[in-house]
Amino acid sequence: MGIQEFVEKSIGNWRSQRSAHHLAFSHFEAVLSDIEIALIAPDDPSVIALCEAYKVDPLAAVSPFRMSWEGQSDWEDSEAIKGTCLLVPIPDPEDPNRGDLLRDRGYAEEMAAIGKYHFTDDGTFVLITPYERASAEEKIWFINPNVRCRVSLIKTSAGSGVVTASFSSEIRQTAKD
Amino acid sequence: MGIQEFVEKSIGNWRSQRSAHHLAFSHFEAVLSDIEIALIAPDDPSVIALCEAYKVDPLAAVSPFRMSWEGQSDWEDSEAIKGTCLLVPIPDPEDPNRGDLLRDRGYAEEMAAIGKYHFTDDGTFVLITPYERASAEEKIWFINPNVRCRVSLIKTSAGSGVVTASFSSEIRQTAKD
Repeated sequence: MGIQEFVEKSIGNWRSQRSAHHLAFSHFEAVLSDIEIALIAPDDPSVIALCEAYKVDPLAAVSPFRMSWEGQSDWEDSEAIKGTCLLVPIPDPEDPNRGDLLRDRGYAEEMAAIGKYHFTDDGTFVLITPYERASAEEKIWFINPNVRCRVSLIKTSAGSGVVTASFSSEIRQTAKD
Repeated sequence: MGIQEFVEKSIGNWRSQRSAHHLAFSHFEAVLSDIEIALIAPDDPSVIALCEAYKVDPLAAVSPFRMSWEGQSDWEDSEAIKGTCLLVPIPDPEDPNRGDLLRDRGYAEEMAAIGKYHFTDDGTFVLITPYERASAEEKIWFINPNVRCRVSLIKTSAGSGVVTASFSSEIRQTAKD
């Protein structure tokens, strides 16, 4: 699977159930959210601006997309969780199974970030994003066209300690069966 | 990674945080449990009996082990969750990356079951177990020697519908750091 096929399969509206495990405290957090993933034209000004910010040729971008989410956590006094993020894949010209992923805000810290992705032999998308004080490792895979799973780990920047492990099961909202 | 190395890395006591997503109802279940994984001698009578029940040569068994767990769910009125299970890997003689896994009780249904396992190129252990009315798909991988993740999916026997998706983060209890 290449990034183009993966993004195509991801386009749509998803109902997400996410559990975050805060490992140090054995604490559980539950989040229900709606996620929308939409293709963005490669020549959209936002794509070109993000590529230029990273000094990447915008012509190298493949299947840029926007992810938007809105949800509610059971965490005490939490406000609604809402956000949007532009993601621009830049495949490795020598290996279609891997590449860079530019994003205009990150997951672990709210700043722009550049991650490295690759696909395993069973089609799992693996994304590793270093941040200033932490790193994030995400795995996303499809169970069938209408169900996907996502595991996200936030590690301390030293890299050995896992701080949070979270799991999302995502169901396509427009599924007909 | 072969099954012997995987079992060796798994031996020990683990503190598990498990979240189950019951997808039809967007219901979250949280389970905290202690898991013990211990090697069993290949010539232990329980191993030989399980092999014989499946008409498998006991000499083909590699790294049999016992998994025991005790935990508590936040599910209403739930009793303590406690169990033990003998697991006997039978590697494929022609492919060390895959094989059968015999168990004396199953996960989705409390009966003996035989699953098919394989390792992906990034060392993830994948186990698929058919049951009478459902099938279970498990993925287990190590983040580091003291943290492992497990994703379990229970599907209807028709195979297309996912009923429950659950995620465990498991931390080694005897870790020194």
